[in-house]
Amino acid sequence: MLKGKHLIDPMDFTVEELDEIFEFAERIIQNPSEYSHICEGKLLATLFYEPSTRTRLSFEAAMLRLGGKVLGFSQANSSSAAKGESVADTIRTVECYADIAAMRHPKEGAPKIASMYASIPVINAGDGGHQHPTQTLTDLLTIRNLKKQLSNLTIGVCGDLKFGRTVHSLIKAMSRYEDNKFILISPNELKIPEYIKKEVLEKNNIEFLEVEKLEDVIDKLDILYMTRVQRERFFNEEDYVRLRDSYILDKKKMENAKKDMIVLHPLPRVNEISIEVDKDERACYFKQAKYGMFVRMALIAKLLGVDK
Amino acid sequence: MLKGKHLIDPMDFTVEELDEIFEFAERIIQNPSEYSHICEGKLLATLFYEPSTRTRLSFEAAMLRLGGKVLGFSQANSSSAAKGESVADTIRTVECYADIAAMRHPKEGAPKIASMYASIPVINAGDGGHQHPTQTLTDLLTIRNLKKQLSNLTIGVCGDLKFGRTVHSLIKAMSRYEDNKFILISPNELKIPEYIKKEVLEKNNIEFLEVEKLEDVIDKLDILYMTRVQRERFFNEEDYVRLRDSYILDKKKMENAKKDMIVLHPLPRVNEISIEVDKDERACYFKQAKYGMFVRMALIAKLLGVDK
Amino acid sequence: MLKGKHLIDPMDFTVEELDEIFEFAERIIQNPSEYSHICEGKLLATLFYEPSTRTRLSFEAAMLRLGGKVLGFSQANSSSAAKGESVADTIRTVECYADIAAMRHPKEGAPKIASMYASIPVINAGDGGHQHPTQTLTDLLTIRNLKKQLSNLTIGVCGDLKFGRTVHSLIKAMSRYEDNKFILISPNELKIPEYIKKEVLEKNNIEFLEVEKLEDVIDKLDILYMTRVQRERFFNEEDYVRLRDSYILDKKKMENAKKDMIVLHPLPRVNEISIEVDKDERACYFKQAKYGMFVRMALIAKLLGVDK
Repeated sequence: MLKGKHLIDPMDFTVEELDEIFEFAERIIQNPSEYSHICEGKLLATLFYEPSTRTRLSFEAAMLRLGGKVLGFSQANSSSAAKGESVADTIRTVECYADIAAMRHPKEGAPKIASMYASIPVINAGDGGHQHPTQTLTDLLTIRNLKKQLSNLTIGVCGDLKFGRTVHSLIKAMSRYEDNKFILISPNELKIPEYIKKEVLEKNNIEFLEVEKLEDVIDKLDILYMTRVQRERFFNEEDYVRLRDSYILDKKKMENAKKDMIVLHPLPRVNEISIEVDKDERACYFKQAKYGMFVRMALIAKLLGVDK
Repeated sequence: MLKGKHLIDPMDFTVEELDEIFEFAERIIQNPSEYSHICEGKLLATLFYEPSTRTRLSFEAAMLRLGGKVLGFSQANSSSAAKGESVADTIRTVECYADIAAMRHPKEGAPKIASMYASIPVINAGDGGHQHPTQTLTDLLTIRNLKKQLSNLTIGVCGDLKFGRTVHSLIKAMSRYEDNKFILISPNELKIPEYIKKEVLEKNNIEFLEVEKLEDVIDKLDILYMTRVQRERFFNEEDYVRLRDSYILDKKKMENAKKDMIVLHPLPRVNEISIEVDKDERACYFKQAKYGMFVRMALIAKLLGVDK
Repeated sequence: MLKGKHLIDPMDFTVEELDEIFEFAERIIQNPSEYSHICEGKLLATLFYEPSTRTRLSFEAAMLRLGGKVLGFSQANSSSAAKGESVADTIRTVECYADIAAMRHPKEGAPKIASMYASIPVINAGDGGHQHPTQTLTDLLTIRNLKKQLSNLTIGVCGDLKFGRTVHSLIKAMSRYEDNKFILISPNELKIPEYIKKEVLEKNNIEFLEVEKLEDVIDKLDILYMTRVQRERFFNEEDYVRLRDSYILDKKKMENAKKDMIVLHPLPRVNEISIEVDKDERACYFKQAKYGMFVRMALIAKLLGVDK
């Protein structure tokens, strides 16, 4: 029973609970019109203390396509900031108006605090560089749908593995399924943090490999998960320019990949995937955005307890 | 008949008209699903020239929970400001799209001007430091519901009584009911303006008392209406720091209050009510936010003439 | 068949296709409630990279009054700009969520690019100083409804004819109907561009006259289309102040106009139409805003293929 629960950390739900969500998402995908009224009379509050248009629109589309309604804000305005209200007070007001809330906040832990005071389900829609659980759900549903399994896969994750919360969560989540292997592709300065290696991979006896060059391993992958190397995070400009191009997926690199490999990306992409790849059937990052909407539909319905 | 009227000043409606609204709100509270479609096909425009997330969400939730729809803006954008359109022209355009409008504006009198040109009902959602009539309706419905009466009450208002428009409106509104008494609790610099004393209280032979310390009078109150002492309004920093703490409601002060006293606050609160008070059954400020939505539902339905 | 088409340039549609839209708009005007559910289950994305409250609200009202739903953003936020996503990628994400999109963008050609990548209809809601096709549709429907014809009219266009895209599009569009004449009223510095004269008017043997003073020609007009002289575009301040007042429509000038002339304006107006003119029956600029909503309703329904 997921009804009434919060989703704050990608690991909040058991594998069984995730299965329940994914199965419901798949039923929606099969027959969306059957579910287009199940949230009638329900309100979703989108509390976005920092802008994240893509995530907000995905949540809003999800609720609207279930027949529900949406209210909220898309950035912290001077007013409420100046008035200094706490997240705890805000959620206690918002729960007067809405039946469920999705919160994006620049501060780590803010959605967690909100959930501690809320009588309605709170979904973490991203808190700083910390967690973004519905992205992880999106990734998993995409893999499950396109590969027909969540186990026995060789998963390449490429780019900024040091700061990318999306990648960390994906590794943790996929480590719970059997016989997955990881190939971790990054520049030396941006390698996966030690605690992920120690406490997630080694602890669970997950096979993994760290490499520097995508071209050396692309032929081994069932899934290639690309991420951005964000200029603002850490480099001096010179390093950024030098390294950026080493992690660009292009047509040439794709030639060596398996015929049924899938390329994923949390989006937005800048130039880490060359646009010439978009037409390749294995490029699944826009499909992934669609799965993101469907998994949020399933999640909202489950937390509200309106799934049939 | 309230259909087609505007609400600009908290005193625009007679006591009888207010009763009509409150009775309708209470019917909605009893059975919200019966009223969840009465605004179908109706559009509310939320014209917020300055951000006020709480008020906007309350209006939007109200309309959505009546089955209506919402459009609008949440802050004045550079574009329309630069283009220099008058409020009169804006409302004549908005009335092409919407059936009712709620307007928040930093300039006193802007919603009044809009209402003079509008063919649709205009609700003042706050104009500068001037009026905020739906807050007053919220306060009254809350008192009516929780105390089962609007008369024969001893009402303490505490904090900034000089600039607080909410407090001024509450005093005016409650002065229209019989046998209410006021205890006005504020620092000397922030006492209630003379015109309220002369033209509202004394003129209507309302009993009132001015004191400096909350702890001296809390035992006498049926209602304690707390407000913020806003740093930006007037003090030098030293005075602000000295006085701020004198008007904080905490557990210790609550011990001397009546068992059935209710604590109200227009929210957001900063630290004028200690969070330890939140769990006290007499703390009703979050309930008050819920009443705010219900009274707006009743108001919108009445002004649109869709109440059954 | 307009289903699935984009609207990027005001001239994208043939005269016959426009007729189809206008006829459908007129059916909606006659009986709006019959069409209040035809977009049920459909989502409009309003992608406004720069604020344009009036246009956005018109689109949103149109969709909501057809029973559809709306999501989107009202200004480019720092986040998505900083992340550097292309319009092509954005639309491919948005089409996962929505069934149709209206895009406003400060850069010329951005909606065109979006339409090249989109699998859903894209409507240009204004791209820089370039095109604003739904304004042209609005103008044409207004004329068609109020004058009962789109041909055989003497049309005065007054104000900034050099930079005003609205005026250029109107001239092009009205040049496709028979026996229309134009009187082009502007200061010398702001005359209509040569290419409009050569490639539109002269090429199609359209009769036109260029004059400097509105009062000299107002008696000849069936339609007077007023536009703003925008301070920011070009003048030195001295010229602006000198010329501004030459193009103000007031009661006195209206005395010489035909009894059935109609005054149009794309709004917002600043002071180019004196407010004393508002009460004149010939002042049709607020009606025009209403036609704007209706023509957008017809357009959305046609592009979605949900018109009956």
